[in-house]
Amino acid sequence: MSSANWEEVARKKREDLFARIPADYRIQNPPPEDQLDVTVWPRESGWFSEKELEITESTATSILQKIATKEWTAEEVTRAFCKRAAAAHQLTNCLSEIFFEEGIKQAKALDEHLRTTGQVIGPLHGLPISLKDNFNVVGYDSTLGFTSLVGKPATYNATLVDMLERLGAVRYCKTNVPTAMMIAETVNNTFGRTVNPRNRLLTSGGSSGGEAALIVFKGSPLGIGTDIGGSLRIPAACTGIFTLRPSFGRFTTQRCKSGLAGQEAVASVNGPMARTFEDIVFYSKTIVDAKPWLVDPKCVPIPWRTVEPKQKLKIAVLWNDGVVVPTPPVMRAMKETVEKLRSAGHELVEWDPVLHVQALEFLGRMFVADGGKSVRSLLAPTREPFRPEMAPYEQAPELGTFDMWQLQLARSELQRQYLEQWQSYGELDAILCPTTPYATVEHGNFKYVGYTGVYNVVDYSAVTFPCGITADKEKDQYPADYVPLSDLCKQVHDNYNAEIVHGMPVGLQLVAKRLEEEKVLAMTETVLKAIAAIQ
Amino acid sequence: MSSANWEEVARKKREDLFARIPADYRIQNPPPEDQLDVTVWPRESGWFSEKELEITESTATSILQKIATKEWTAEEVTRAFCKRAAAAHQLTNCLSEIFFEEGIKQAKALDEHLRTTGQVIGPLHGLPISLKDNFNVVGYDSTLGFTSLVGKPATYNATLVDMLERLGAVRYCKTNVPTAMMIAETVNNTFGRTVNPRNRLLTSGGSSGGEAALIVFKGSPLGIGTDIGGSLRIPAACTGIFTLRPSFGRFTTQRCKSGLAGQEAVASVNGPMARTFEDIVFYSKTIVDAKPWLVDPKCVPIPWRTVEPKQKLKIAVLWNDGVVVPTPPVMRAMKETVEKLRSAGHELVEWDPVLHVQALEFLGRMFVADGGKSVRSLLAPTREPFRPEMAPYEQAPELGTFDMWQLQLARSELQRQYLEQWQSYGELDAILCPTTPYATVEHGNFKYVGYTGVYNVVDYSAVTFPCGITADKEKDQYPADYVPLSDLCKQVHDNYNAEIVHGMPVGLQLVAKRLEEEKVLAMTETVLKAIAAIQ
Repeated sequence: MSSANWEEVARKKREDLFARIPADYRIQNPPPEDQLDVTVWPRESGWFSEKELEITESTATSILQKIATKEWTAEEVTRAFCKRAAAAHQLTNCLSEIFFEEGIKQAKALDEHLRTTGQVIGPLHGLPISLKDNFNVVGYDSTLGFTSLVGKPATYNATLVDMLERLGAVRYCKTNVPTAMMIAETVNNTFGRTVNPRNRLLTSGGSSGGEAALIVFKGSPLGIGTDIGGSLRIPAACTGIFTLRPSFGRFTTQRCKSGLAGQEAVASVNGPMARTFEDIVFYSKTIVDAKPWLVDPKCVPIPWRTVEPKQKLKIAVLWNDGVVVPTPPVMRAMKETVEKLRSAGHELVEWDPVLHVQALEFLGRMFVADGGKSVRSLLAPTREPFRPEMAPYEQAPELGTFDMWQLQLARSELQRQYLEQWQSYGELDAILCPTTPYATVEHGNFKYVGYTGVYNVVDYSAVTFPCGITADKEKDQYPADYVPLSDLCKQVHDNYNAEIVHGMPVGLQLVAKRLEEEKVLAMTETVLKAIAAIQ
Repeated sequence: MSSANWEEVARKKREDLFARIPADYRIQNPPPEDQLDVTVWPRESGWFSEKELEITESTATSILQKIATKEWTAEEVTRAFCKRAAAAHQLTNCLSEIFFEEGIKQAKALDEHLRTTGQVIGPLHGLPISLKDNFNVVGYDSTLGFTSLVGKPATYNATLVDMLERLGAVRYCKTNVPTAMMIAETVNNTFGRTVNPRNRLLTSGGSSGGEAALIVFKGSPLGIGTDIGGSLRIPAACTGIFTLRPSFGRFTTQRCKSGLAGQEAVASVNGPMARTFEDIVFYSKTIVDAKPWLVDPKCVPIPWRTVEPKQKLKIAVLWNDGVVVPTPPVMRAMKETVEKLRSAGHELVEWDPVLHVQALEFLGRMFVADGGKSVRSLLAPTREPFRPEMAPYEQAPELGTFDMWQLQLARSELQRQYLEQWQSYGELDAILCPTTPYATVEHGNFKYVGYTGVYNVVDYSAVTFPCGITADKEKDQYPADYVPLSDLCKQVHDNYNAEIVHGMPVGLQLVAKRLEEEKVLAMTETVLKAIAAIQ
């Protein structure tokens, strides 16, 4: 391997991946390359049967109900999603591993179980669930985009993968990520770039951008992504779907592959991504009910707690974080959402982002504290070059452990101050803020993860939800008196292209404190009702 | 300060400390230096009134009840403990800070509150609680034994100190620790050595050895210590008292002073130390009921969970950890305790310590990962020398962050394996094991913390309890066929002095999984009943 040419390894891996798509799932007449929105293709192409369309356009919870009542078989559901996932990959380059045969085999066994016992095997019986590339699945690579990890199949499953299997879920594919999962777009030297199915000139975000593309294309009813700086929330916002970023310890992250293995100063978490809010809630409760703390010592033994929705929420609004003013569609989405919440009788106050700059500085330093050695050691075997987006990892000096301890100390003090600020508002329920400065953005232009990253530093629970507002080139201009807050702010401003993001959904973020997953979900439901965006 | 002579600083600090003992609390006729057991002195000396003896020999819960019913005032209770703490210090050198006047002032205000409102201010109304030196209290030093920290009073309270005040507790003193709290005996260059009140030739353990000495002398009804490798459990075992080492996140550790500030790979926790089991339970529930997660973002929002005692426990017995065979009194205590548990109908199995050696190796590497820089930076300002016990900190090379991440990764895998092993027993409730290889030991001879340290690595909840068995020079010899398991084992063997530890209590350890504080306490009650050692 050490003498292998990384480009050759990558080319071969992409070929192998494509070869795993069954011949009849290969698109002979793809939409033209200049067709930007490919989400319409499944219905317009005639490539799918009516039943395949019906299945793949259903929600996870309705699929489960139809399998449990034997209206649909797990096998036909799995086959439909395999086919649509194959299409999604061919149109957006969203997959990293394909194991449709394994999924169909699982589905058949589940059908047989239901037929013979009359019982479902668990609450996820027959549901195909897509997995981000870093979830280890025995027999398949977890490359994280590195050519050096090609051809090194996992010898054990991630703990969550085992748990999902026990609950009855079907696995059928893994999804593309950026190199080491440390870029806010989904691009790497092995698989290349995943594009946004709503507009292929735009990013589906990162690092769970393969998942987001697959899900919004309806090639998966529900997928699992991860988040260490916004990697669940950014792709959800870029594609207009829902996600929950839980606090660390609620869902198991054990035995997954990491680009920064052993890094603990800021915790990576995983969570569900789906087109509907109900599916996010259902998955979250299902996982906690399965008691992950019995198999993962880092999980906290907190059972699912029912939270009654409050009539009147007290929400602090973070209009901008003092570093980057959100682009006009996001500013308008914030304003309209706040107005609707106020009209619905909720109390709105303002959040002072006094601690945000420091939080982001700490986050950046924690990611590169090893001087990029982890990334370098994954690039070296195949002499794969650093991608330009990974420059901070190429350039950072390594911290000694003493300096790392000082950084952790400062981060803990910031966590204390953030909670103190929260408590200073009295009975504050949530913070409402942008997920990113963008609706989404052209490839290569995603410059700022501050709105998500701060909540990784303090490890708060957060939901990203499409707020029902889409970018509108007529309405969304920077104000005449715009003054950049920073160089980053100016870059975001200069890259803003009202024309190209026209029609893209805006995803906002609702944040609750640490380990308040049930509460942030209950509040999201209240907010969705207020903005009349709930189904 | 940089030119100060550390010995001069230390001498002055000790003088200042002594000067804070009121003149009438200074012992004019101390027991002779060769009187080893000074626990008998308060009753034999005539130095205390009957009421002072009655108060200080009461439990925390009975004191609270008597204050709440106005049988005693908080002031007289506080004064009695101040006096007895002053005696304890003069006979065992157990205090590091004295603020009796502040405690009496607090007590008077509490009495006034109760008088005028008829209500207690909180569940700890009027209870004097002693604090380990590292709890910051505004206006007083937290030296951790370092001369460089003398004369640098805290400018804020530890979060727990504020919480205890809100609950009604009275603070009146802080207790001595070893340098940086990283030695298993209590000795440092500022205050010197704390001795065991039961036998002044023996150690009261460390690092919460000032607390243990004070409590067993009855100079405090309840104290708070900390534990990163056994620092609660070792002193509790050495002096024959109770403690709970909680998992991280149950009680707040925020804003305390640390000798290894910012170190997070193994978490320091704090917990109660007391002469009775009931007081440990009462304190633990009281703190959790006060919801520390509202003020400390690292605390987990798990309310106090009532655990019903089980009729039949399944307990795995760890006879020895494969590194050091416990000394004969501890082996006999284990055997007799296991027999009693079996007689009481509990199921006993054996724990295979296959992972223990590796856990201890990791623990040792994590402590010195900064190459001793944290300790060195605290020694340097006054040119204070490394104590010989701190040699590992003087000699270790610093790890870079990349290597630290690899160590954390290996430790996480060990945590996973430890839980997997636990679950492999089926419905295993607890592990029973020694707390240390010793009942206690002569000063300078405490060589091994493996029996406690492993549970810091996996962050399990653990109680240390006096099992009712005391060392007996007639019964407790090494077996004729003793073969050392290691060099450490041989050292422990060679240092064993049956004569001098005769009569010392043996403290065993009952361990439950992570965040099972209520369960390990409920099981301890069951075990205490079985061994008929409960009051």
